[in-house]
Amino acid sequence: MNAYNQEPRLLHGGDYNPDQWLDYPEILKKDLELMKEAKINTVSLGIFAWSALEPREGEFHFEWLDQIMDDVAAMGGNVILATPSGARPAWLSEKYPEVLRTNANRQKMRHGGRHNHCFSSPVYREKVALINRKLAERYGQHPAVIMWHISNEYGGDCHCEYCQANFRKWLQARYGTLEALNEAWWGPFWSHSFSDWSQVESPSPIGESAVHGLNLDWKRFVTDQTIDFFEHEIKDIRHITPDIPVTTNFMADTMDLIPFQSLNYERFAKHVDILSWDCYPAWHNDWETTADLASKVGFIDDLYRSLKDQPFLLMESTPSGVNWHPVNKTKRPGMHLLSSMQHIAHGSDSNLYFQIRKSRGSSEKFHGAVIDHDNSSDNRVFQDVKEVGALMEKIQGVKGGGKKAKVAILYDWENNWALDDAQGYAQGTKRYPQTLQEHYRYFWNQDIPVDVVTPRYDLSGYDLVVAPMLYLLSETDMRALKEYVAAGGTLVSTYITGVVNEADLTYLNGWPQALQELFGLQVKETDVYYPKDHNRIQTATGDYGVKDYAALIEVQDAEVLARYQEGFYQGEAAVTRHHFGEGDAYFIAPRTEQAFLDEFYGLRTKELHLANPLVVAGNPDVSIQSRKQAGRTYHFVMNFSEEVQEVTLAQELQDLLTGETMPKTLHLQPYQVRVLVAE
Amino acid sequence: MNAYNQEPRLLHGGDYNPDQWLDYPEILKKDLELMKEAKINTVSLGIFAWSALEPREGEFHFEWLDQIMDDVAAMGGNVILATPSGARPAWLSEKYPEVLRTNANRQKMRHGGRHNHCFSSPVYREKVALINRKLAERYGQHPAVIMWHISNEYGGDCHCEYCQANFRKWLQARYGTLEALNEAWWGPFWSHSFSDWSQVESPSPIGESAVHGLNLDWKRFVTDQTIDFFEHEIKDIRHITPDIPVTTNFMADTMDLIPFQSLNYERFAKHVDILSWDCYPAWHNDWETTADLASKVGFIDDLYRSLKDQPFLLMESTPSGVNWHPVNKTKRPGMHLLSSMQHIAHGSDSNLYFQIRKSRGSSEKFHGAVIDHDNSSDNRVFQDVKEVGALMEKIQGVKGGGKKAKVAILYDWENNWALDDAQGYAQGTKRYPQTLQEHYRYFWNQDIPVDVVTPRYDLSGYDLVVAPMLYLLSETDMRALKEYVAAGGTLVSTYITGVVNEADLTYLNGWPQALQELFGLQVKETDVYYPKDHNRIQTATGDYGVKDYAALIEVQDAEVLARYQEGFYQGEAAVTRHHFGEGDAYFIAPRTEQAFLDEFYGLRTKELHLANPLVVAGNPDVSIQSRKQAGRTYHFVMNFSEEVQEVTLAQELQDLLTGETMPKTLHLQPYQVRVLVAE
Amino acid sequence: MNAYNQEPRLLHGGDYNPDQWLDYPEILKKDLELMKEAKINTVSLGIFAWSALEPREGEFHFEWLDQIMDDVAAMGGNVILATPSGARPAWLSEKYPEVLRTNANRQKMRHGGRHNHCFSSPVYREKVALINRKLAERYGQHPAVIMWHISNEYGGDCHCEYCQANFRKWLQARYGTLEALNEAWWGPFWSHSFSDWSQVESPSPIGESAVHGLNLDWKRFVTDQTIDFFEHEIKDIRHITPDIPVTTNFMADTMDLIPFQSLNYERFAKHVDILSWDCYPAWHNDWETTADLASKVGFIDDLYRSLKDQPFLLMESTPSGVNWHPVNKTKRPGMHLLSSMQHIAHGSDSNLYFQIRKSRGSSEKFHGAVIDHDNSSDNRVFQDVKEVGALMEKIQGVKGGGKKAKVAILYDWENNWALDDAQGYAQGTKRYPQTLQEHYRYFWNQDIPVDVVTPRYDLSGYDLVVAPMLYLLSETDMRALKEYVAAGGTLVSTYITGVVNEADLTYLNGWPQALQELFGLQVKETDVYYPKDHNRIQTATGDYGVKDYAALIEVQDAEVLARYQEGFYQGEAAVTRHHFGEGDAYFIAPRTEQAFLDEFYGLRTKELHLANPLVVAGNPDVSIQSRKQAGRTYHFVMNFSEEVQEVTLAQELQDLLTGETMPKTLHLQPYQVRVLVAE
Repeated sequence: MNAYNQEPRLLHGGDYNPDQWLDYPEILKKDLELMKEAKINTVSLGIFAWSALEPREGEFHFEWLDQIMDDVAAMGGNVILATPSGARPAWLSEKYPEVLRTNANRQKMRHGGRHNHCFSSPVYREKVALINRKLAERYGQHPAVIMWHISNEYGGDCHCEYCQANFRKWLQARYGTLEALNEAWWGPFWSHSFSDWSQVESPSPIGESAVHGLNLDWKRFVTDQTIDFFEHEIKDIRHITPDIPVTTNFMADTMDLIPFQSLNYERFAKHVDILSWDCYPAWHNDWETTADLASKVGFIDDLYRSLKDQPFLLMESTPSGVNWHPVNKTKRPGMHLLSSMQHIAHGSDSNLYFQIRKSRGSSEKFHGAVIDHDNSSDNRVFQDVKEVGALMEKIQGVKGGGKKAKVAILYDWENNWALDDAQGYAQGTKRYPQTLQEHYRYFWNQDIPVDVVTPRYDLSGYDLVVAPMLYLLSETDMRALKEYVAAGGTLVSTYITGVVNEADLTYLNGWPQALQELFGLQVKETDVYYPKDHNRIQTATGDYGVKDYAALIEVQDAEVLARYQEGFYQGEAAVTRHHFGEGDAYFIAPRTEQAFLDEFYGLRTKELHLANPLVVAGNPDVSIQSRKQAGRTYHFVMNFSEEVQEVTLAQELQDLLTGETMPKTLHLQPYQVRVLVAE
Repeated sequence: MNAYNQEPRLLHGGDYNPDQWLDYPEILKKDLELMKEAKINTVSLGIFAWSALEPREGEFHFEWLDQIMDDVAAMGGNVILATPSGARPAWLSEKYPEVLRTNANRQKMRHGGRHNHCFSSPVYREKVALINRKLAERYGQHPAVIMWHISNEYGGDCHCEYCQANFRKWLQARYGTLEALNEAWWGPFWSHSFSDWSQVESPSPIGESAVHGLNLDWKRFVTDQTIDFFEHEIKDIRHITPDIPVTTNFMADTMDLIPFQSLNYERFAKHVDILSWDCYPAWHNDWETTADLASKVGFIDDLYRSLKDQPFLLMESTPSGVNWHPVNKTKRPGMHLLSSMQHIAHGSDSNLYFQIRKSRGSSEKFHGAVIDHDNSSDNRVFQDVKEVGALMEKIQGVKGGGKKAKVAILYDWENNWALDDAQGYAQGTKRYPQTLQEHYRYFWNQDIPVDVVTPRYDLSGYDLVVAPMLYLLSETDMRALKEYVAAGGTLVSTYITGVVNEADLTYLNGWPQALQELFGLQVKETDVYYPKDHNRIQTATGDYGVKDYAALIEVQDAEVLARYQEGFYQGEAAVTRHHFGEGDAYFIAPRTEQAFLDEFYGLRTKELHLANPLVVAGNPDVSIQSRKQAGRTYHFVMNFSEEVQEVTLAQELQDLLTGETMPKTLHLQPYQVRVLVAE
Repeated sequence: MNAYNQEPRLLHGGDYNPDQWLDYPEILKKDLELMKEAKINTVSLGIFAWSALEPREGEFHFEWLDQIMDDVAAMGGNVILATPSGARPAWLSEKYPEVLRTNANRQKMRHGGRHNHCFSSPVYREKVALINRKLAERYGQHPAVIMWHISNEYGGDCHCEYCQANFRKWLQARYGTLEALNEAWWGPFWSHSFSDWSQVESPSPIGESAVHGLNLDWKRFVTDQTIDFFEHEIKDIRHITPDIPVTTNFMADTMDLIPFQSLNYERFAKHVDILSWDCYPAWHNDWETTADLASKVGFIDDLYRSLKDQPFLLMESTPSGVNWHPVNKTKRPGMHLLSSMQHIAHGSDSNLYFQIRKSRGSSEKFHGAVIDHDNSSDNRVFQDVKEVGALMEKIQGVKGGGKKAKVAILYDWENNWALDDAQGYAQGTKRYPQTLQEHYRYFWNQDIPVDVVTPRYDLSGYDLVVAPMLYLLSETDMRALKEYVAAGGTLVSTYITGVVNEADLTYLNGWPQALQELFGLQVKETDVYYPKDHNRIQTATGDYGVKDYAALIEVQDAEVLARYQEGFYQGEAAVTRHHFGEGDAYFIAPRTEQAFLDEFYGLRTKELHLANPLVVAGNPDVSIQSRKQAGRTYHFVMNFSEEVQEVTLAQELQDLLTGETMPKTLHLQPYQVRVLVAE
């Protein structure tokens, strides 16, 4: 029995911290009323509750949690139960300082904050195992529990002696001998060869920071050690509650909303049953359009959906604003419904919030929540949440429904690590994830579904694979790309591709032979542009600006689709196509303005018949995403703009919210979303 | 006998460091001559002189100080005698490392700099007590001594174990139980509840930094511990020299010239007999007009005057430029006289400089001084000082004279601490002190006297109280505001008011009931603007831009004076008036451009008859400030611009400098100041 | 016998690290072929090779180096043999942690990076002496060795207890008594007098940072201690190989390409036989013209040539781009030849590169190299190098040839240290080296040869000495300037001159008497400008903008050549000439726009007959530099622009590359260089 799979409803609710309000019984009572009113059916409990569960070592208090869980069960709700390791009580840090992290400067941190335990500490592992086991034993059979929420937003690293020892063990397993390590890290450079394993240490601003092989392996180790800690957390849980699926909440990074960088989620995703993530876009900001930002959200949704090839959960989001952006703006009317539906459109089976109730004190007391300090449903945010809850009930049939795309964009964590760390090119303009967002943008504009997958994914099902900037590309991955094209696929690659192998060592003897064969060309140089530098390329029909990077290529037997217009490589090939096996391999040598990508992918869309058959006349401000479940297709038509927009569909569809049948040509109000199905 | 009160002269002079020149007897001799020529009557001695007074432990040398003090006495001058704790000799740090501060990163600092002793160190307290006692015993009866200058520019904090222990004691006294502390700091959030006092520590970038209640209490503790150290410094001094008043020099902060942030001077002011401060505006800068800057100086002068409701001393200033601004420009001709007179106009009984003589080496050798390295009176700065000295003699009757205003602006240190630390709103635009400066600006432009007081001040004497952005507002202080209005007062409040209590915990159940009753409205949301966001409000007569913040309010029974013109709250109330008891409570929901404040306060000025009766036709570039003493009113008319300006007064007055009777309409040269009295 | 002097060829080649490729025999073989093809005649070996030479303590491996050296000898090449102290093996750091630096924060660094050993550590000195001796003994007689390359790019400092002790010894030697030290450092300021030598410590951000005398002496000590380490390195080498000259590679600093700041090369230059340096301009950047940047290169070339008054070596440069600029652009076609010839034109006898072969891993794998990862000569960079090699062979007669200039510009390291550290003026606009570059620019534009020398240089041979901004100017140096003018020289000085003595103590009693006599004026004040401030000066023929600084002067008996046009010193003297003895002393009181310097130096050029007799019609984008050797003059005519440029010479000359005789009027293609000689 897997309670989560049996739950027919999309999950609506989120993080709930009654442990902050145990002295306020009237608040706890009000919460239940308001949750019901807001059509909330799921709460995540126990995140950061360790000091409430075990206020002194060995002294456990579950009675408050028993009560809440029973209350939630009584209202027909679900509980996603958290392990509390994301933050520990002060007594633990005080008695066992080894649980505190040591930072890269080799400073032992003091108690404070959260997400700051050593992942190697035996004591911390013991204490975590104990409380996790108690939770599993006490609540494993509780009717409300549908899922485990392991810790919270794993991230960061520790440089203590335990971690150094584990790092050395990890390296020994990877390399076998010191000689192999010295070779992989190019040890003789600056006399960095090691003569004993004991000399190897994690990177540090006050020690080694420029051995890129070490930096890369440290990041790999941190991912593996984090997963090792996660596996330690769930060992007993799996045993005691084999039927309850396990998740942990993933994240995105920076105001650009790129995939989280500190951990390789490709590896981590294999260890969770359900992938879930926390999404906090800065809607209504003043540096990009709403559609710009929406397409970035779509990119990550598509990546995290594709990582496990199944629906994901939106584990955290805000019904209004957050408290940690430079400017913390609330959502304008309509945006909460629109942005909530977008996640479902891309494969989410939930809209969960951080947080159900705003805390009264400390650093997140101004983070958006379903229930505000006013303790009332009489405010805009609460009413927005209620509206989302109502629509989620109407479309709940979509739960579990999938998407399948004919287009894949490749994203690779290790590639980004290696490229970002590389000394070369221009630090300010590498922007690998942001470049993927630009390529993705064409398909988003055209309502063409996209999977975002890694190079290790089986590509054979795709008509088009877009793989820009694969700086680090192993020979195995090269082979996979070659086989994909040979078998009839269409591949797009760019500048800064195939430069180093998985050890961050450059390929010798020119661009890798495999790539030369695949693309029918040789890369000779990569020109790096200053911000004021300029160039243009000319295709058969257009003329487009170049920025940041331009590879200089020597065409062997590829067809030239565009040429450079300026500078010392004026007239040289800039975009090429090479027929290879049954397929085609395209190479875009410069980074261009968006308009070129629109032309280029427009042609590929036509040739490969990628266009969305539902869309007769699309609109770049309107996103249309569809999911299929139980034979029914749910079409989400979303206006990400501040103006009325029009689209024309191929058929008349029914609006699930209003029940009415819509004409083919739809007029969407600003921020309006419609969920349509065929009658 | 209080020699300072008996001194009829305004004090003119400043910090003097003969201890730097003991090997240059000709310099010491020249100093006396030049001081006389510059009409200097007061010197502050002994600041930073510890290594001259006690070059080796227990080996005291007072003979040089005896000589200087006698020389000053012989020329009829006063001495403000300093305790030397602001910087200690190297032997003290070397022998007793505990006297060195531990920084927030828990690093023990090395010897160096100044203002860097631990305030808790028993050894430091013992050594300070000893030398202070010796100074008091030796010079307590010296005829030149009129005041004690305790240490110098107190500030900063220490995180050593002594200070941690004192912090815990302070917390125990404040909260009684750990339960109360956990509740106040919202301990359960992120499992931050403590189970033992020993777990509590000061904030740290490598430990706890986001528990706002802790941060706030640490700042309170630092103020109290600094005062405790100050009280320790003066204990024996009070005993030995009960008739000599005590001061210590306060400061302002940042290039915006806002009140000093690290210490709560509201509390500190109660412990000094005379408040004095150090003022270093960047005159002639290129980012604001001279009048802009002058109004900021006026704001702090009015605050520091109001803190003790008596004249203050300008303890440090520069006759030319400083050495620590990004650009160290000297004062243009006229500015020294003008800026010196401004302080007296606002309530200063002195113009004291740092420094009488420029040092020859080390970091302040290019800080402006009365006597430059040229050792001569033949330079512009010296002549400017002399001119100030001459005018100060002519207007010395103003000494001790007061000001009383009908308008108060409320400033609250703890509010600024809490708001600045809050995670929420937009970090870049909170600017509480700068917002007060904007409100102050109207009154400064209109020559209407203003007191800047704290919410704890007795407000009953004011016709208008301006209280923007009281984010942290205790129920006691709310009550005081309510009583003030109920009794007939007029109160102005704004967005971001009444959000948290004194523990930095939010008020629950909506805007505090007391404020709802007072203003006749409920605050629903606070919209936060990106720099490029815009909105406007419309009043009966004007239309004004909105920036940064806009509260959305639900009017209960207030009168709406302006409404928003754009966005989803277009048409909603933006400015309101509520008649409450015998008075009126205004609420300005958005932050506006200055023009709205001009209209708004213009109307209040008319209704409440606040206009300055002396001014028939004012001029925003000309500031008119008046002080009364011994039945005579001294009017300072100051042109803070680079152009000739005109004002028209209600009467003909006599110019104290020239003796001539001035016509009602005055033409002031650039930077000109006139000090006028009724004949 | 000095093999280097006997080498008739200009050196072409550079850093070569076969130790990185010992497992790749085919690479090592290919390297030799490619070097021959590229006309490379010299390699620097062993830099950073310690872990290859001594992989475990006491276990030495020279066999690989034997082989390479024999191979180089066999191809007729030279070896510049390096000592390996620039980076040490991990075993050394692990076993003897004392060899690791302690940073200014008093943190012991970890192993990693390079250029990071303690200069005082007895163990490090012992280990360095041992390996250096072994190298000298083994290779001292090797026919290929022509020079020693000691360590690599010395720089940085260490604050460990060994270094503190050495610093105290150095101070005792300099000052004799603590009293003298206290006086020099102006100890009584902030009670900073010391009562025991043990209290003296190096500057630290967590200790003393604002005692400028200490900061200055620390920098002096660091230079002297670095030289002491260098002398330790070469002690046995000198003994074993007395005929092999010794060098170490100097550097430039910042993107402005100013002289390296951390070490006083004036002192260091005396200890090397040949001065060599590493030059990495950011050609083709987007913030300056190519000519702007070329003139900066010329300035440092002229400084480093003048420091030893003999040809220098360009020890490192890149044939393409580097990897550490913000934007790493490669050289456009033509630039490599042009920029290589420029160094020879200014006095270099080499073009050596970092690096012969690009490394495969770690942080410099994308730094430009002769041999790229493609392992081939079939690329643009390799062909550019080959072209340079070919031309170098044609002009090799210039080797050893000198330049002598009639114009000297004075550069002083200690002056820059003191001025940069001074708290005063405006931190952002001091820019002493950049100001020298502006003065230099006139002469560069006019093809007038310039020596850049220090104030200690014998100035008697110069017709014009340009000495701006000598903030720190000892009385000895003043005297030298006076004697120079008295004997008939022409001297140009400016604002911020003669402010402090060599202890960074200000001169008292006004501008130093010696300067008053020399310039016939007194400096009264220095006005410091905000970026938006403005003023103008008017000369007999022009009107020029003023920026940043303006000295206000009182003319005694100088002639006024220009006056200020604005502000309170409108009409006052701005530029003066004073006839002193047989010569003239000019004083430029404000910092001006470049156009004034062009007018001013244009007049001096005319009066002093400084014009280049070869140039009939010059061109600011074309630089003409000449060297004489063996009775022949080599004229380098270089177009530093992206356009065709024209110049007219006084005679028809032969192009050494093509052999053809050129007309007097030359048209140079973009980036073209011609090397011309009289037939």
